[in-house]
Amino acid sequence: MKLYQAELRLPAFPRGFHLITPQVLRAMPELKELQKGMLQVFIQHTSASLTINENADPTVRVDFESHFSKMVPENQSYYRHTMEGPDDMPAHLKASLLGASVTIPVAHGNLLLGTWQGIYLCEHRNDGGRRNLVLTAWGL
Amino acid sequence: MKLYQAELRLPAFPRGFHLITPQVLRAMPELKELQKGMLQVFIQHTSASLTINENADPTVRVDFESHFSKMVPENQSYYRHTMEGPDDMPAHLKASLLGASVTIPVAHGNLLLGTWQGIYLCEHRNDGGRRNLVLTAWGL
Amino acid sequence: MKLYQAELRLPAFPRGFHLITPQVLRAMPELKELQKGMLQVFIQHTSASLTINENADPTVRVDFESHFSKMVPENQSYYRHTMEGPDDMPAHLKASLLGASVTIPVAHGNLLLGTWQGIYLCEHRNDGGRRNLVLTAWGL
Repeated sequence: MKLYQAELRLPAFPRGFHLITPQVLRAMPELKELQKGMLQVFIQHTSASLTINENADPTVRVDFESHFSKMVPENQSYYRHTMEGPDDMPAHLKASLLGASVTIPVAHGNLLLGTWQGIYLCEHRNDGGRRNLVLTAWGL
Repeated sequence: MKLYQAELRLPAFPRGFHLITPQVLRAMPELKELQKGMLQVFIQHTSASLTINENADPTVRVDFESHFSKMVPENQSYYRHTMEGPDDMPAHLKASLLGASVTIPVAHGNLLLGTWQGIYLCEHRNDGGRRNLVLTAWGL
Repeated sequence: MKLYQAELRLPAFPRGFHLITPQVLRAMPELKELQKGMLQVFIQHTSASLTINENADPTVRVDFESHFSKMVPENQSYYRHTMEGPDDMPAHLKASLLGASVTIPVAHGNLLLGTWQGIYLCEHRNDGGRRNLVLTAWGL
């Protein structure tokens, strides 16, 4: 069995949801060596997250930002962790709701994503800066 | 190390939450070959999802549908992705809240689920049709 | 490729969010044998969950409890699964929102967590008792 690991340091993205499937594929060319296997993408941060969702109409990503910012609002009276700004505690909550990783099956050197699936970077801070990902692929 | 991969094309399920542990086990008989390992179940769609929850009382699954449809309502004024019907954008949001995959440890050829745990297909569309899953198992 | 599996039976924790990274590391000393790989932590319950979030300021974990208990309230009129107490159905819903497992890349015998990341046990019941985890590590 083979196992490959790589780091991917993304450029800074604005707050919102962003398709990063091409960047992930470029950072792990060894995926082509796997007949069958898995790829995990892991984000080393607690105020940004990863998810899989629709890769076509960009209004889906706009609606993600609207909905998550309504479901997890800023400036709630019960927040005690407020030192790092009003967008910080909601960012931590959104990060756990969406998750720190996505794991995708691989066959014949390609991700087995559905036709409409893409990998999103979910940037929950107003100025999150650059984010580090760890990619790990394993299989036969 | 061994690695097995299979596709599972589910029948169409109505909107709601449905136990599919038996279907998953039937689609991956090679699980019996693993003394220790992992099984991932991945859904190739962006308006349905997978989760693990209680496998006994069916009212839990009814309450999941009620709660998720209240927490992520239809027809919000801020939705811009509305072309595919009022159940579509909420379906995308619910899919990311719950996730596109579940990964479960395996020992002695069996899933190491707790007594009350089962795998749910979460069908978020009114007429989602058949859904494709990819199962990948690896281990010794 | 190597694969290790261990069980970790946690002590009972009060309702809320609790850092358990040290307990996880102690239960899987074989992590030191992996040059590159993965660790999955899986919880065998449906009313408690696991997530990754900030490991420093404890008010983050307090705000998690406040926010999740507001987002998934007790005693909703639409709950039908009420036999096991008012904290039970919200616990199931929170467990699926956060998830039953976390999977973390490993390099040089260490978890590749970001500086601020830790593993949380999310105890959603008032008296959840002891919780069982299954740890599985694989790699080269």
